[in-house]
Amino acid sequence: MSTGSNFGKLFTISTWGESHGEGVGVVIDGCPAGVELTEEDIQIELNKRKPGKSIFSTPRKESDKAKILSGVFEGKTTGTPISIIVYNNNQKSKDYSEISRFYRPGHADMTYDMKYGFRDYRGGGRSSGRETIGRVAGGAIAKKILSTLNIKLTTYTKSIGNIPTSKDFDENEIWKNDLCIPDKSCVEKTENYLLDLIKDGNSCGGIIECRVDNLPSGLGEPVFDRLDAELSKAVMSIGSIKGFEIGNGFSASELTGIENNDFYRYENNVIEKESNNAGGILGGISDGSRIVLRAAVKPTPSIKTTQKTVTKSGENIDINIKGRHDPIIVPRAVIVVESMVAITLVDMLFRNVNSRIDNIKKIYSEPQ
Amino acid sequence: MSTGSNFGKLFTISTWGESHGEGVGVVIDGCPAGVELTEEDIQIELNKRKPGKSIFSTPRKESDKAKILSGVFEGKTTGTPISIIVYNNNQKSKDYSEISRFYRPGHADMTYDMKYGFRDYRGGGRSSGRETIGRVAGGAIAKKILSTLNIKLTTYTKSIGNIPTSKDFDENEIWKNDLCIPDKSCVEKTENYLLDLIKDGNSCGGIIECRVDNLPSGLGEPVFDRLDAELSKAVMSIGSIKGFEIGNGFSASELTGIENNDFYRYENNVIEKESNNAGGILGGISDGSRIVLRAAVKPTPSIKTTQKTVTKSGENIDINIKGRHDPIIVPRAVIVVESMVAITLVDMLFRNVNSRIDNIKKIYSEPQ
Amino acid sequence: MSTGSNFGKLFTISTWGESHGEGVGVVIDGCPAGVELTEEDIQIELNKRKPGKSIFSTPRKESDKAKILSGVFEGKTTGTPISIIVYNNNQKSKDYSEISRFYRPGHADMTYDMKYGFRDYRGGGRSSGRETIGRVAGGAIAKKILSTLNIKLTTYTKSIGNIPTSKDFDENEIWKNDLCIPDKSCVEKTENYLLDLIKDGNSCGGIIECRVDNLPSGLGEPVFDRLDAELSKAVMSIGSIKGFEIGNGFSASELTGIENNDFYRYENNVIEKESNNAGGILGGISDGSRIVLRAAVKPTPSIKTTQKTVTKSGENIDINIKGRHDPIIVPRAVIVVESMVAITLVDMLFRNVNSRIDNIKKIYSEPQ
Amino acid sequence: MSTGSNFGKLFTISTWGESHGEGVGVVIDGCPAGVELTEEDIQIELNKRKPGKSIFSTPRKESDKAKILSGVFEGKTTGTPISIIVYNNNQKSKDYSEISRFYRPGHADMTYDMKYGFRDYRGGGRSSGRETIGRVAGGAIAKKILSTLNIKLTTYTKSIGNIPTSKDFDENEIWKNDLCIPDKSCVEKTENYLLDLIKDGNSCGGIIECRVDNLPSGLGEPVFDRLDAELSKAVMSIGSIKGFEIGNGFSASELTGIENNDFYRYENNVIEKESNNAGGILGGISDGSRIVLRAAVKPTPSIKTTQKTVTKSGENIDINIKGRHDPIIVPRAVIVVESMVAITLVDMLFRNVNSRIDNIKKIYSEPQ
Repeated sequence: MSTGSNFGKLFTISTWGESHGEGVGVVIDGCPAGVELTEEDIQIELNKRKPGKSIFSTPRKESDKAKILSGVFEGKTTGTPISIIVYNNNQKSKDYSEISRFYRPGHADMTYDMKYGFRDYRGGGRSSGRETIGRVAGGAIAKKILSTLNIKLTTYTKSIGNIPTSKDFDENEIWKNDLCIPDKSCVEKTENYLLDLIKDGNSCGGIIECRVDNLPSGLGEPVFDRLDAELSKAVMSIGSIKGFEIGNGFSASELTGIENNDFYRYENNVIEKESNNAGGILGGISDGSRIVLRAAVKPTPSIKTTQKTVTKSGENIDINIKGRHDPIIVPRAVIVVESMVAITLVDMLFRNVNSRIDNIKKIYSEPQ
Repeated sequence: MSTGSNFGKLFTISTWGESHGEGVGVVIDGCPAGVELTEEDIQIELNKRKPGKSIFSTPRKESDKAKILSGVFEGKTTGTPISIIVYNNNQKSKDYSEISRFYRPGHADMTYDMKYGFRDYRGGGRSSGRETIGRVAGGAIAKKILSTLNIKLTTYTKSIGNIPTSKDFDENEIWKNDLCIPDKSCVEKTENYLLDLIKDGNSCGGIIECRVDNLPSGLGEPVFDRLDAELSKAVMSIGSIKGFEIGNGFSASELTGIENNDFYRYENNVIEKESNNAGGILGGISDGSRIVLRAAVKPTPSIKTTQKTVTKSGENIDINIKGRHDPIIVPRAVIVVESMVAITLVDMLFRNVNSRIDNIKKIYSEPQ
Repeated sequence: MSTGSNFGKLFTISTWGESHGEGVGVVIDGCPAGVELTEEDIQIELNKRKPGKSIFSTPRKESDKAKILSGVFEGKTTGTPISIIVYNNNQKSKDYSEISRFYRPGHADMTYDMKYGFRDYRGGGRSSGRETIGRVAGGAIAKKILSTLNIKLTTYTKSIGNIPTSKDFDENEIWKNDLCIPDKSCVEKTENYLLDLIKDGNSCGGIIECRVDNLPSGLGEPVFDRLDAELSKAVMSIGSIKGFEIGNGFSASELTGIENNDFYRYENNVIEKESNNAGGILGGISDGSRIVLRAAVKPTPSIKTTQKTVTKSGENIDINIKGRHDPIIVPRAVIVVESMVAITLVDMLFRNVNSRIDNIKKIYSEPQ
Repeated sequence: MSTGSNFGKLFTISTWGESHGEGVGVVIDGCPAGVELTEEDIQIELNKRKPGKSIFSTPRKESDKAKILSGVFEGKTTGTPISIIVYNNNQKSKDYSEISRFYRPGHADMTYDMKYGFRDYRGGGRSSGRETIGRVAGGAIAKKILSTLNIKLTTYTKSIGNIPTSKDFDENEIWKNDLCIPDKSCVEKTENYLLDLIKDGNSCGGIIECRVDNLPSGLGEPVFDRLDAELSKAVMSIGSIKGFEIGNGFSASELTGIENNDFYRYENNVIEKESNNAGGILGGISDGSRIVLRAAVKPTPSIKTTQKTVTKSGENIDINIKGRHDPIIVPRAVIVVESMVAITLVDMLFRNVNSRIDNIKKIYSEPQ
């Protein structure tokens, strides 16, 4: 398929829905039969992207209740498509009527008009952050699959604006604060920074890091569908992400070969690396060590401060965007990044199976 | 297709070949009929990635003569697959025999073995930089198509190690020096830095920037096949690239909303942006302004300095990689980045056609 | 995507849902923006596959009300995914409980168990005919697009059992009788044949023909995605279809070259064919004349007559399938065949656009 | 990929080349590492489609020597793309120059012009039967993989014109005669029929049957990528094939349910079917019994008899096609059908692996 609303090749998600339509949803196809799955499994993940948790995110109350419509029978996946829907209950179209006539800076209003000739302007329509609900639901299933192989993802806020938030790292802290910060001692400073931005009607960006542990080696399909290339597309497909890097990333460009190469050593008959500058991927293939990747998130474009823009009818105007908006997207995007990484990993796990004829023989040699 | 050696959906390249096999090649499918094309068009681009131009790249003489085997008739493309081959003439297998038994740090030797159980170890086999010949040949055709629409790409070395190389920018300088540096005044300093690295048997990385001008608005297929996501995958699929960013990229994470948003203004009845922090893409769709993207290149892993590694048979050893190797990949990768961007843009141009029913009517309403 | 629940490449449908789950649905992606679309457009087509119209189809009352959940705004498609749902209201699970333990001959019960390890056995689960609701909804949209180009499909029952039903052909008759027979004079004989089968608790098959008029030439992507090959897959993907042919089809195998070749003649400066044995396709590409294809439908496997089968637990048993079942699937499959053909044609229309560089120039040369 | 010159999703072939260009070739991607493969394996299969074996096929001597350019190292596949080329040695362009100005009835001359605006007219260009060389080479590799799982294909000429050729069936006879007839007693009668057609400058069609034994159950991806649907596309993608059927095929349309259903019985604790009217596939999924499919081949369009046609410049003319041409394509198409079936089966074997989570656990639970 060459349409744009689906992701993955063997484990796939197809999202649909607009901010103020009937609902948003996702169809997950390629999920193997036999995975235990409940609506609660999905709901736990969806709650992680829920707004309204604190003053740092928009107080709109979204119920975001996930309903599984197909593909699960007697508590297990059947191997057929899993359709999940979240109805749009709390959307007030009137709040958004004004934006039909002008283009908000930093939003997709203008480019959707350029591409399609017109757009569903209510609440951002298809380009709304609500679209990520389907990704997170798909990610919930992907993580169920990964957990059967003991693969673990840890994703968190690495910096907010220019404030680093992970000097000390305690993974148990991440979901205890509203900002997904793994270092308790950094929370207060960051909160104060955000409170100041809110006063100014301004916003800021940040960096999200994702780590994957216990991933088997061999994932990634040379030469184009490298694991790092696929992860990059997965993460860059999320709105507001402007950069992606793996391992040392951009800082590798300033290092020398002797500094950046990871040396190998046998430790107890297992090959270990003395460092992990590569972030767990060489030649586009996972090497069995930790995957480390980062995403750069731009500042929320919806700000209260006066901005210059244009109307569709040809005027130059000044606008002040109404309503309460998140001064920062980063904490809500953490679970979205994790979901897209999880979906990609399942897809690449499945794709790698056919890399050796011995795997095929193993599957078909004995009666199922 | 879910195999890994093809790229693109409507305009596609499929590369094949190993460093020391019979040759390397590419099949381009989806090229429309009627594009004027000669072997010289391909050769000009291939020569831009040729090694042996200077002391800063490996002196191996690769003839790299492109031969078109199909898809072109009487000087024009026929709409059928274009097969291009470059024979491997100058490869000496004996030089590489030793590396069959150990894993070079920073190379794909170990991960290929992990994935496939064994590998063609001669000269890196499939993971060799020679594989990019097919990409550059495909890029040459993509650029022929882009030029019919007046779309222009400019790609250059933005930094080498921690030395910025584009304070002044003169696009005519880029292909006049061996390092693809657009600022004449930066060449000498950079060369001296590299000469020192060569003396030390070391290497370094750098950053490549690509700019696209005159690209139509509307390219990019929400929500997953965003233009930035597709460009990211294209660039990250090149060996040694560890990071990708668009517009302000990672630095956007440190800005506030008022700093990062691009304001719109009508100038002579055309919508202009007062800045281009977004790098020409909003909501995953091109906005008609310049596309700006950057790729971080890691230091060449092949270095003469002693390194620690392991053999397949279980020993910890020290190695010194023989032969002359590029102290820097960046200048040779410039044309590869440009090629992958060009291929992606053609693909997205073709995919965007179906976004409006009026386009379809325009094509089929009149006899062809 | 390599999962099995989606069809098409540029205009795609993804169906989901089981017979006795929450509902069945479809996501249509790749529909251009600007197509006028209402729920009524969908409903008209769904009603054509509705059971309960006569004694010749199962009297279960399925409401089958289509609801559009996304992708349409102010009466027009937006270019984003169109999600359509039909809730399952009238399904009684208790009726189907017995079939959980044995395999119905001619059904997919056993093969689903073989593939997935277990199955949703209620009403056939995923292999139920209800899955075709999504196909028909997708077909409704495809036909809206085709109609803007004046392309017309005519599909009908060509034979039932060994009774030909189209000696005289009046397209206006097709949807006037419950059997989709275009020849009024054949209806009574056919009905009597079916009444006899019902008395015997037996069933029968038949042949469906589809004709496409005003299709542009040039559709079909050599060498594998030929128009006939794609149509074949589309039609053979429908349950109970066991054969497909184009033009003269199987009878061409008994003809000689001079009999089967279609000769060309200029008539008023337009190339005409003196015959259409090829069914409108040569070399896998439409030639601008009428497309003619046929599908062979097997007898309904659900019959009341005693049949021999096995239980999962290892017994040989005799069964009598309870409930009322259609003695013939053909009339209800007519609209499904038409829908799959329509979807394929839209997909191939879109794919053909890129076959000439002049088309690309036509789209991008002028501001949209 | 949505271009037309590739086939398969996990095991793929991409063919390229024209009849009178430099050569024809194929890139096979997705072949697992570790399959033993030599050029001789390919050559044996290519020789089965070689013309010039007898008076019943064109006496042009095509050397058709296959050369493997990549993807094989030390006698085994490496998991990377396998590129195979056959150079065009024996093509004389002068013989074909006349056909540049008119359209041969039954050929793709006109439709290629309609689609692409012009064509490589030499020897049929891309639509030449020489394109199938790549398919047969791909099929050779597919059969190597199938043989490791003990899966066996038997393909033969079932009828020529209206003469049945398989009353008695001896698979050892198939490749002993030039017509791939499995019944020795039918050879003479068929040969005489063809000799008469040659005298008349005429040609005929026929039917090819393919049987697959020992195929595992579970192959086929509901609901669109059914095994029968995928096989149908594979076979219908071959030039000159006008119909496809599985099991009872078109004759099922004339049967009743009680006649057509296959009953199950346990024999020695294994489920057996009392008949195989379904041809080994139920609900689009293989049931573990023999697959039986048939393809209808049209008469060779190249005939010496006078035919009416048109020139590109607007004249109605009579033509007599020069040169010696096969009076029948069927025998040479037998190996092409078998190859396409083999490729499809490997693809579907690979795709089915992910249908159960237990398969995934089996692959990744133990170190490779």
